[in-house]
Amino acid sequence: MSQVHVTRRYRFCAAHRLHTDLLSPQENWAVFGKCNNPNGHGHNYVVLVTIISGTPQGVGTIERLDHIVNDTIIERFDHHDLNGDPAFAVLTTTGENLVKVIWEILQPLLPAGSLRKIGVIETRDNYFEYAGST
Amino acid sequence: MSQVHVTRRYRFCAAHRLHTDLLSPQENWAVFGKCNNPNGHGHNYVVLVTIISGTPQGVGTIERLDHIVNDTIIERFDHHDLNGDPAFAVLTTTGENLVKVIWEILQPLLPAGSLRKIGVIETRDNYFEYAGST
Amino acid sequence: MSQVHVTRRYRFCAAHRLHTDLLSPQENWAVFGKCNNPNGHGHNYVVLVTIISGTPQGVGTIERLDHIVNDTIIERFDHHDLNGDPAFAVLTTTGENLVKVIWEILQPLLPAGSLRKIGVIETRDNYFEYAGST
Amino acid sequence: MSQVHVTRRYRFCAAHRLHTDLLSPQENWAVFGKCNNPNGHGHNYVVLVTIISGTPQGVGTIERLDHIVNDTIIERFDHHDLNGDPAFAVLTTTGENLVKVIWEILQPLLPAGSLRKIGVIETRDNYFEYAGST
Amino acid sequence: MSQVHVTRRYRFCAAHRLHTDLLSPQENWAVFGKCNNPNGHGHNYVVLVTIISGTPQGVGTIERLDHIVNDTIIERFDHHDLNGDPAFAVLTTTGENLVKVIWEILQPLLPAGSLRKIGVIETRDNYFEYAGST
Amino acid sequence: MSQVHVTRRYRFCAAHRLHTDLLSPQENWAVFGKCNNPNGHGHNYVVLVTIISGTPQGVGTIERLDHIVNDTIIERFDHHDLNGDPAFAVLTTTGENLVKVIWEILQPLLPAGSLRKIGVIETRDNYFEYAGST
Repeated sequence: MSQVHVTRRYRFCAAHRLHTDLLSPQENWAVFGKCNNPNGHGHNYVVLVTIISGTPQGVGTIERLDHIVNDTIIERFDHHDLNGDPAFAVLTTTGENLVKVIWEILQPLLPAGSLRKIGVIETRDNYFEYAGST
Repeated sequence: MSQVHVTRRYRFCAAHRLHTDLLSPQENWAVFGKCNNPNGHGHNYVVLVTIISGTPQGVGTIERLDHIVNDTIIERFDHHDLNGDPAFAVLTTTGENLVKVIWEILQPLLPAGSLRKIGVIETRDNYFEYAGST
Repeated sequence: MSQVHVTRRYRFCAAHRLHTDLLSPQENWAVFGKCNNPNGHGHNYVVLVTIISGTPQGVGTIERLDHIVNDTIIERFDHHDLNGDPAFAVLTTTGENLVKVIWEILQPLLPAGSLRKIGVIETRDNYFEYAGST
Repeated sequence: MSQVHVTRRYRFCAAHRLHTDLLSPQENWAVFGKCNNPNGHGHNYVVLVTIISGTPQGVGTIERLDHIVNDTIIERFDHHDLNGDPAFAVLTTTGENLVKVIWEILQPLLPAGSLRKIGVIETRDNYFEYAGST
Repeated sequence: MSQVHVTRRYRFCAAHRLHTDLLSPQENWAVFGKCNNPNGHGHNYVVLVTIISGTPQGVGTIERLDHIVNDTIIERFDHHDLNGDPAFAVLTTTGENLVKVIWEILQPLLPAGSLRKIGVIETRDNYFEYAGST
Repeated sequence: MSQVHVTRRYRFCAAHRLHTDLLSPQENWAVFGKCNNPNGHGHNYVVLVTIISGTPQGVGTIERLDHIVNDTIIERFDHHDLNGDPAFAVLTTTGENLVKVIWEILQPLLPAGSLRKIGVIETRDNYFEYAGST
């Protein structure tokens, strides 16, 4: 059986601010530091989606993935403020939460068992990876 | 005479939104597209500062430059919203304007004639460079 | 027991064209799009070979691997047209197939169990990985 | 006067083969080595186009450039064999010639004096740059 | 349960020389080649530390990791000669040994089970990875 | 007349230590900080050599340059300690001096006027460039 993993790279630019309503302004600052600055900052996010190639020849696999990721991830987050997205109504917009949010969006849209890993590069030095809960 | 150019690389993460009060909301959208989204987006900006090395042995050149750039550029823009900065009260926050703003800040603080070039990498595919007006 | 994984990076430049004789010219175009252009196109391929270091001090591990990979992979594919290679007489030259072909070539030439993973970077955005069938 | 240089990055994948009809097969091999292999090889080419920003706010500069480059460079060379292109009917498909061909195509299509530099990255270690004849 | 892996990137510059007192000078040269040159050479090492995020919101995880890695790895190895470090009194300073030394230093300082992987990039083409002995 | 600039990328790994005999140990430390650590440290140096392509078709240009650079730069500095090199008997091994030393070595070996620029990347954030004295 084919076991080739295909990783496709996507990008979006977004603003965000680390902040939670569960804490006071002073506590937010103590916990998040400059990442809590009121007007937010931003990143060039890179998203790496790893799937199992579904057909013997890989025909159409990447094209279909591109459509799904562009429609549900890039269109939604690119050139937006993550803090205004419903997915982050309660969650803070950390890389840990973002990578799980992307997994939760994509996993039901792909053939069962084909999604293997989501990676998010937030900055040159920060990388987050999620392979689902097991 | 020493002609070695030293380029030092700095980074900051910031939010921004392309928008000008000179245009109506509809015109802003027509001109800037998704870069005009109300809540802004953001980038991992890279700033490349090129100077002429001032001393025969280069002693202290980079340390002094680091202090100046950190105090006046990184502290000011990192984890902030560029649209809220006084430098962009009138100017839109394009890469073209940002690279000139950084030149105008640094040029008077460095020894006369030593600043040669400012480069700004906004995204993987967009690079802006300014060498002063002549 | 030593569990250090060593990944060594190699490169080759090759032409290829996505095409299968099982389909008509029209069907090939429908399936592969511009990748089916008659005269082919090409890539700078990067091959990442991951092995378990065989000796306590790692002495000679990389040198031996270099000889094997250069003799059997780089000499064979570098500056050639993948579509003309016997390995692709039946298979299309997708990244999915290329990464498996490289595994099949290298696996019998290395100490049993030492090959752990082959990665192929086809373009900046496409990565293929194979760890053997199990 | 605005002196900001904007560099925009594009990519295409193409096959090519170094060969000239002015030489015999033996001479071609002596001069070009493995780059003369009959079926060609290929590269992921990166094209860097540097222009002077034409308007005070940079509005629309990059969008217009994208249209021109996509229509005349990317559409023409991406997923093609450079040796089959009319521009290389006589010229060999070296990086030196490619960078000049791209300049000659783009220069008449852009506002007078606005094109400043074309760069072509052929492989990780080879870069070609042309700023016009003067 | 949260399964997000966070990878943080660190760097240090160090000298080293491949040499073991168990071998004669001639044998050292035969085994290590130019890496055995008496005065050593050096690298810009990159260290990738992968941990499981410990708290639901990831609060403080990276800050704590930075303190530990800076205090015990960067301070110790940056701008030093690895061959003079007690960890390499007996071991040669190969990438295989370095990645294990870093694991052994960090593992007891982090919450039980939270360290998942250490990666060391020695040169552009050499990568070493260790996930503990099991 | 052909004006194409060709930049070729080379690499070497070397140890070095910033130190000058003109200063006392205390003064050396004050000036160079950790870069003055007695046993030195090291870098993966990248050297970028830019020349004017000498022939209409670029035939043989890169091959000849490779031979010259490998024989006089890579063989000399790779896997050595820069501080032990005669070129640095008096000069400290700063990037400023290294880029000029490389220029002085290569310039007389290349056709008159063909060498245009030497670049040295010392670390991810430090770049030195020299185009000769004029």
